[in-house]
Amino acid sequence: MKPHLDSLPPDMISLDDYARLSRQFIEPATWEWLQGGSGQLQALKANETAFSRHAIYNRVLVDMKHGTTRSHLAGLDLAHPIALAPVGYHRLVHDQGEVATARGALDTLMVVSTMASVAIEEIAAAAAGPLWFQLYMQPHRDDTLHLLRRAETAGCQAIVVTLDTPVQPASHAAHKAGFVLPPHIDAVHLRENGPPPPVALSAHGRALFQAMMAQAPTRTDLEWLRDATALPLIAKGISHPGDAAELLAMGYDGIVVSNHGGRALDSAPAPLTMLPAVRSELGPDAVILFDGGVRTGSDVFKAIALGANAVLIGRPQLHALAVAGSLGVAHMLKLLREELELVMALAGTPTIADITRSTLVETDYPGGSSC
Amino acid sequence: MKPHLDSLPPDMISLDDYARLSRQFIEPATWEWLQGGSGQLQALKANETAFSRHAIYNRVLVDMKHGTTRSHLAGLDLAHPIALAPVGYHRLVHDQGEVATARGALDTLMVVSTMASVAIEEIAAAAAGPLWFQLYMQPHRDDTLHLLRRAETAGCQAIVVTLDTPVQPASHAAHKAGFVLPPHIDAVHLRENGPPPPVALSAHGRALFQAMMAQAPTRTDLEWLRDATALPLIAKGISHPGDAAELLAMGYDGIVVSNHGGRALDSAPAPLTMLPAVRSELGPDAVILFDGGVRTGSDVFKAIALGANAVLIGRPQLHALAVAGSLGVAHMLKLLREELELVMALAGTPTIADITRSTLVETDYPGGSSC
Amino acid sequence: MKPHLDSLPPDMISLDDYARLSRQFIEPATWEWLQGGSGQLQALKANETAFSRHAIYNRVLVDMKHGTTRSHLAGLDLAHPIALAPVGYHRLVHDQGEVATARGALDTLMVVSTMASVAIEEIAAAAAGPLWFQLYMQPHRDDTLHLLRRAETAGCQAIVVTLDTPVQPASHAAHKAGFVLPPHIDAVHLRENGPPPPVALSAHGRALFQAMMAQAPTRTDLEWLRDATALPLIAKGISHPGDAAELLAMGYDGIVVSNHGGRALDSAPAPLTMLPAVRSELGPDAVILFDGGVRTGSDVFKAIALGANAVLIGRPQLHALAVAGSLGVAHMLKLLREELELVMALAGTPTIADITRSTLVETDYPGGSSC
Amino acid sequence: MKPHLDSLPPDMISLDDYARLSRQFIEPATWEWLQGGSGQLQALKANETAFSRHAIYNRVLVDMKHGTTRSHLAGLDLAHPIALAPVGYHRLVHDQGEVATARGALDTLMVVSTMASVAIEEIAAAAAGPLWFQLYMQPHRDDTLHLLRRAETAGCQAIVVTLDTPVQPASHAAHKAGFVLPPHIDAVHLRENGPPPPVALSAHGRALFQAMMAQAPTRTDLEWLRDATALPLIAKGISHPGDAAELLAMGYDGIVVSNHGGRALDSAPAPLTMLPAVRSELGPDAVILFDGGVRTGSDVFKAIALGANAVLIGRPQLHALAVAGSLGVAHMLKLLREELELVMALAGTPTIADITRSTLVETDYPGGSSC
Repeated sequence: MKPHLDSLPPDMISLDDYARLSRQFIEPATWEWLQGGSGQLQALKANETAFSRHAIYNRVLVDMKHGTTRSHLAGLDLAHPIALAPVGYHRLVHDQGEVATARGALDTLMVVSTMASVAIEEIAAAAAGPLWFQLYMQPHRDDTLHLLRRAETAGCQAIVVTLDTPVQPASHAAHKAGFVLPPHIDAVHLRENGPPPPVALSAHGRALFQAMMAQAPTRTDLEWLRDATALPLIAKGISHPGDAAELLAMGYDGIVVSNHGGRALDSAPAPLTMLPAVRSELGPDAVILFDGGVRTGSDVFKAIALGANAVLIGRPQLHALAVAGSLGVAHMLKLLREELELVMALAGTPTIADITRSTLVETDYPGGSSC
Repeated sequence: MKPHLDSLPPDMISLDDYARLSRQFIEPATWEWLQGGSGQLQALKANETAFSRHAIYNRVLVDMKHGTTRSHLAGLDLAHPIALAPVGYHRLVHDQGEVATARGALDTLMVVSTMASVAIEEIAAAAAGPLWFQLYMQPHRDDTLHLLRRAETAGCQAIVVTLDTPVQPASHAAHKAGFVLPPHIDAVHLRENGPPPPVALSAHGRALFQAMMAQAPTRTDLEWLRDATALPLIAKGISHPGDAAELLAMGYDGIVVSNHGGRALDSAPAPLTMLPAVRSELGPDAVILFDGGVRTGSDVFKAIALGANAVLIGRPQLHALAVAGSLGVAHMLKLLREELELVMALAGTPTIADITRSTLVETDYPGGSSC
Repeated sequence: MKPHLDSLPPDMISLDDYARLSRQFIEPATWEWLQGGSGQLQALKANETAFSRHAIYNRVLVDMKHGTTRSHLAGLDLAHPIALAPVGYHRLVHDQGEVATARGALDTLMVVSTMASVAIEEIAAAAAGPLWFQLYMQPHRDDTLHLLRRAETAGCQAIVVTLDTPVQPASHAAHKAGFVLPPHIDAVHLRENGPPPPVALSAHGRALFQAMMAQAPTRTDLEWLRDATALPLIAKGISHPGDAAELLAMGYDGIVVSNHGGRALDSAPAPLTMLPAVRSELGPDAVILFDGGVRTGSDVFKAIALGANAVLIGRPQLHALAVAGSLGVAHMLKLLREELELVMALAGTPTIADITRSTLVETDYPGGSSC
Repeated sequence: MKPHLDSLPPDMISLDDYARLSRQFIEPATWEWLQGGSGQLQALKANETAFSRHAIYNRVLVDMKHGTTRSHLAGLDLAHPIALAPVGYHRLVHDQGEVATARGALDTLMVVSTMASVAIEEIAAAAAGPLWFQLYMQPHRDDTLHLLRRAETAGCQAIVVTLDTPVQPASHAAHKAGFVLPPHIDAVHLRENGPPPPVALSAHGRALFQAMMAQAPTRTDLEWLRDATALPLIAKGISHPGDAAELLAMGYDGIVVSNHGGRALDSAPAPLTMLPAVRSELGPDAVILFDGGVRTGSDVFKAIALGANAVLIGRPQLHALAVAGSLGVAHMLKLLREELELVMALAGTPTIADITRSTLVETDYPGGSSC
């Protein structure tokens, strides 16, 4: 594969450019893993299509000279409402992995994955902006607690617990491309975990339910977790308003509406479709992040208009990291933020709070996707 | 064509893989017969498209460790709600035909076709799971009775009478490929039938109506059939709620909502579209099976959520049988069942009874099919 | 081009087959003229798409042995509700032109065009079924009267006056292919017409309005026409319910809902879309024919279910005529009629009168067209 | 590139033909600039798709011999409701630039752009029809006033102030093609402008808001402009009914509903979609022009039926100018006007005032665009 670039070609002007170019910088099997979705890809495609159902009014009579993307999110004061989603194994596309990503995350919140290929302490030492820690609950509570304490000690300012993949369906494309983690890359945070608990299947017992799902976090586990940290605690992978409401009632500080980038339930709805119902259920003050197919400033704007406080960016991190390391990540974020500013300028919304449902008009035709 | 495989390639991970690979194992004209639909293929395509109109909520707060696909169906206690649809002439793709299929149907109900290329007694001797018998009513009632008695004696536990193809429109593709039954394969159950009754067309009489449709089962015939067997009796090929209700009023035990895999009326609606109205008409206790385009665990889940008690799988049987004989059939069923378990785990539905309409959300965009 | 066939290849099993094969039998520029539509082809494409919005219930409990396609239409007793639409210049694809078509129209009503390339008297002498005459009103009433009298004398049993193309937009494809009538083919019925009336354009006058549209039939002309013949009089090219109602109030016997096969107003709606509103406006007893994209028995069925008494077939006449002359026309009509019988058999509608709106179910997905 | 044609090939029969052919007459990078849209092209594609949602009734009982496209627009008496939209830099495709365009604009209103590559005085000397002047407000009011006075003195009969691009998003395709203005072409009207005002960014200040948007016209500027000219004043780039109403309340004479040809906000709605709401908000007497994807007479008709008094044509001007200079422009306008006449003739609308909402029927299928 090509070595990372030291400077940016002048025709890198959108996240799509990074996606396209990154193919030359990423091993083919890794590319399939990164781009893949579960099953028949219904959820993955729905994420992209959903944005085209909404258009944004161009407004012309608003004074925009005090325009700003400044955002407040669970106690953080952020330059803009765009954050880096938790993505595992950054070292698959860059030797320094998450450390390089964190260096490029200027002014930007980064959510570090449990499945990071570099330790949270090293990432924190390099980070250009605030960090949150994404938690997969472990079979042994001690291991989970140990992860929490490391994240707190490293300075992470919130915990994001992912709930939508107690088991994860296969990406057919990644499987066929033969993707496996290379021996020198692993989930470093899990090295010290105890062995998984033994499972005795009953007669006719099914491994999925009696083994894997038996280790999935239950409501009791989630209550325990709420008590286990004083940090803001956010549940990720929520699409049903009822689940969202229950989590808030359990003391959670917010949720991430997400279908795991089309990598969890293969026929899950697009999270954009679910945002309005979730916001309506939780009310105006709940913290709601959005994750799923954001690639342009218009996408960010639409997610906010439909109920999100901020958005998370997944695959484009690794595209940019593969192409040009920290510089690529910083540039990718700059492009997206400037696109958001441009959309806000033309939509007549000087602040994030002005981006409400009334800025949108529904359309019945796809617009943004090539047919 | 390639000989059947003795072991499964590692990249066979979905029913689509069997469909694709099977092309190398099936004679071209037979392939066209198998894949074909009637007329302009509207019904065939509608079957596939219909699933994409529904998405499934990912739920996160349900304890799934006692999850199970166990199902009850017309007196049977089944490991899962996936059964083999009646398909004729399995010997077209495998020398041992239905016997090989039956050996692979582990834990799975198989509905043997009147048009089987192996006798029901041989199939029953080899079967790994329960059998039902699919009945085409014959021109002579004696012949029909004889079929019934053979099925009962062989141990079939229900009769499925197919009603949607008193005449069957041509598959244009099969016709053009020159598909004909080879001389060594026939519908063995019909060998002893009497000659068809003579028809005297009236002036301007039309063969379709006065000959073929005159032999189609009438309401009187169906009442006679109800009295002719003590087995559960299920009518297949129903899409109109009114027909469904009448059949239950006549003492039938259930129906199969189906458009014959797109092989009957070429502009019939997708059966998935009709399921809710049929379930609503018949009430919660009626036995309703579904047949039409099921290829994934999500498809099974959606059919159940929209009203089915179980689903039937057609073409994939022969794909799997052609690729790897009994082993292929067993593996294909395992894949589908495990996909269903995975969807149930992520959808938060521990039992089949939990799969209700509220697990779905309607979408207005296609997702699962490439366009 | 290929000479006409003397016998039919065995794989001619649908009207699509005739369309495809006919390309080898028709001069390329003539093919473009035949297949073409006006402008951007919106109307032409809408005709095809409209059918896919409706599916047909498969019904299973109806006794069909007395099924029949017999139809009554403006005093005629017809074997089926499929008629040949008026199409000009059949000699473009066959030396004997309309005479050959008429010989193939067994049991079938043929509507002879004013623009026929063979005289109505010769067509009538050869006709295998009843004839109607399609009238374009001429600039001089004497010429119109002369056409009417010839049609009456030749035995035509109704007059169909076409109203939707007082001017006809260009087919871009035919224009670019350089289509012109060859010197030996003309509209024989118009040879004796007087010269067109002189037009003196006013200052800033526009030829379209002051010359062409000034010769278009007005309400007064249409009233005159009503009085000029005792034959049933049917207006063709109607899509608006208001126009339909006015024509019936003027004493017209019926209408043809049509957009001239996509050859008139280039953004006209599909006539299938307009049928229900027109039928609702005119009531159950009005004579309503349908014309626009019928290619299968299902299409015929759907048009009748949505309000038509009968359908007209346009381009497929010339496809069949080009491929195999009279034999082709007869076979094409036989295929379509048998498809209609098959659909009726499976839809449980023994007579044309049974084909009502309740036989259809609306769908939101296209089915019949490749994507 | 090819030199301009002196005479027109016979197969130039629609605006699409000019678009296609012009590619041979325009430098590749200039072509990308001309055809391009902002961002992901959602707005650009929406413009085309929107027309296909409406069909036009073919009417048959209207006397059309006094048909006319004559239009009244903000004091002008026009032969037809089709005008030339403001487009910058015509010299990119023709040495004489806007002068050649103006010579071809027979009977046609031309809106000259602030970004013209030829001075308004020269254009006015050559113009074959009335002129309006499109104004971009300049950072210094004196410069704006100077532009206004030049336009008034040159005889422009109205001012069109464009509001939807205070900043303009990049066309990715034009950027990648390396489009830049060649040295011999510039915006001649801006040569004498003063230097832009200095900007001191505050800490964390963003250039887009504090520099560019700080120079965007505010409500105060627009009120000042209203007082600065006695000519009719029309605001261009409006899609929200609220903005439209406010501008009229400020004394503006009308608006242009437009998304800048898909070159402004990249997810803006199609202006055709917004027309009905804007007309409904402003009432029947307001001056509303439409701009966005008009390529056929049907498109003109639909825009008028949905609320426009007249339409503006953008890119096709340059296509025609590139192909055949003034002759091309005149011919392109003739084609479009004649298409409009033809549609009016078939739709039974003798005057522009007859083109109301009731001439349309909504469709749920795309028709005019190939997919």
